[in-house]
Amino acid sequence: MKSKIHCLLALCVISGLAIPALADPLPSWSDREARTRIIDFVEAVSDPRSEDYITPAARIAVFDNDGTLWSEQPIYFQGLFAIDRLREMAHEDEAILSTDLLRAAVAGDLGVVAEAGHEGLLEILKVTHADTTVADFQGRVVEWMASATHPETGLLYRAMVFQPMLELLSYLRDNQFSTYIVSGGGLHFLRAVAEELYGVPPDQVIGSSGQTRYAEMEGTPQLVKDPAIAFIDDKAGKPVGIDTHIGKRPIFAAGNSDGDFEMLEYTMAGAGPRFGMIVHHSDAEREWAYDRDSPVGRLARGLDEGPGRGWLIVDMASDWERIWPAR
Amino acid sequence: MKSKIHCLLALCVISGLAIPALADPLPSWSDREARTRIIDFVEAVSDPRSEDYITPAARIAVFDNDGTLWSEQPIYFQGLFAIDRLREMAHEDEAILSTDLLRAAVAGDLGVVAEAGHEGLLEILKVTHADTTVADFQGRVVEWMASATHPETGLLYRAMVFQPMLELLSYLRDNQFSTYIVSGGGLHFLRAVAEELYGVPPDQVIGSSGQTRYAEMEGTPQLVKDPAIAFIDDKAGKPVGIDTHIGKRPIFAAGNSDGDFEMLEYTMAGAGPRFGMIVHHSDAEREWAYDRDSPVGRLARGLDEGPGRGWLIVDMASDWERIWPAR
Repeated sequence: MKSKIHCLLALCVISGLAIPALADPLPSWSDREARTRIIDFVEAVSDPRSEDYITPAARIAVFDNDGTLWSEQPIYFQGLFAIDRLREMAHEDEAILSTDLLRAAVAGDLGVVAEAGHEGLLEILKVTHADTTVADFQGRVVEWMASATHPETGLLYRAMVFQPMLELLSYLRDNQFSTYIVSGGGLHFLRAVAEELYGVPPDQVIGSSGQTRYAEMEGTPQLVKDPAIAFIDDKAGKPVGIDTHIGKRPIFAAGNSDGDFEMLEYTMAGAGPRFGMIVHHSDAEREWAYDRDSPVGRLARGLDEGPGRGWLIVDMASDWERIWPAR
Repeated sequence: MKSKIHCLLALCVISGLAIPALADPLPSWSDREARTRIIDFVEAVSDPRSEDYITPAARIAVFDNDGTLWSEQPIYFQGLFAIDRLREMAHEDEAILSTDLLRAAVAGDLGVVAEAGHEGLLEILKVTHADTTVADFQGRVVEWMASATHPETGLLYRAMVFQPMLELLSYLRDNQFSTYIVSGGGLHFLRAVAEELYGVPPDQVIGSSGQTRYAEMEGTPQLVKDPAIAFIDDKAGKPVGIDTHIGKRPIFAAGNSDGDFEMLEYTMAGAGPRFGMIVHHSDAEREWAYDRDSPVGRLARGLDEGPGRGWLIVDMASDWERIWPAR
């Protein structure tokens, strides 16, 4: 393996390829402290001559998804997918709208859905995300993502990923980090789109999941989604999910809400250099501004304790020159 | 990325490095049908000009561990680790030996333990694998693996991995396969040693697991192992574990017992070229000979149905020139 790496470096010089560090790796980040701190950290852990050097195998970075890699207002996008699906299902059989929440959701009353919190969302997911093969479910997610638009911005959901975070993911991978998504959202939902949206393959997506069952469907052994919950990848569940899937303590963690607190705490508690960051939604003009009082993406403890713990608080309004990708 | 690959290939020619396919990739495999079928498959899916070509991202290979990558008689090696640990614990407090099975285990009556099957093993694991941090537990596994010896062969356990399977793992990785272990054994146990034994990093190990809990221990937020079972990665659990961790249907699966049947069935049911193999323990002289009647690694359905389904049955006695690595 060593000889292969030598090959690579040698020929990059010969063919005159740009060395990644020479180009601006984070063009959508303002020239402020946040950008400097990220670059200083990545350079320190990647430089074999640095005393903070960390081997590539230990360069594990974990990212929350909703509110960290893409927007999450007025409710999580998976919830909007579920409501669109619920409408389709109710069109065929109105009897499935058996609760006030389900009726409010189909009527488009997103305030009621947001106020119902995670439990409300789970109620909608149980109806819309079960009794289907994983393959069929993911096919529907891909189809939805290709054409559905956001109720307030009118944009395709895929156009509401955060350009500065896409750059950060690429920058880390260019420096031999493994980039994982650790989301409170659904494992199968997110995996259907994470590679296209973020360049993160299915095996590097960790999320909440329902029970799945191995069964023959239409003559083929497949995996079938059941309504029972298997794992909630939120709060203290995030370190558990990281341990179950990755088996190593990350050195870099990014989140945006108090659901990410334990993931950052766990990451930062390891020995050696560590980086924790929280995206603070402070830009009502270009995106949304919310923290302590938002039913979606509530952020209070992270704001209060994060700076004292050395976590970077990213101020969207001033640290990001662009929010979503150029169209 | 494309330009980097071009670099690599170009310079390999310049510096005269051997191209892997030219050396014998499977030197411990006899020159028989098993070896030919493996090589034909790997070459077909790796050759961009072949109609069976599969992209590297889809080249997912899954391996059972006990009986497939290392020996498993007279009982699973993790069981032997657990019994050694149980002895240590009983030395401090004999009251933990509260059942006949636990007393038989400490007395070294492995026949009783083997006959008690998975449930018996779980009883021992619950006592020995819980109420410890993951880090402390894995430290003990590493220590044990460095010095403990097998009760019948007197060999270090690490010396009882299958040399032909080590070659197969390397051969697949050289051809850009991702090699995962999908074991009925314990996730934390196996991860502690899989990288050293097989070159498989922790995030590519899937296994059975107890509940883990995020908690502060000795001033540091850590993961703590609880006695309750979270997931059994055996039989129909193997396709579920593969879906949860990898999120793709493998194209290559290797097992040795009926606990691997569903994993092979799931793998082989996908579209396009597939490879399934079963290691048949047929060599009483160099290892052990067992199948239908063995309480450990029972193999009946795989023998009966495997050949008709196109699965390769590897005959250890004649297909392998060597069983364990040279010392």
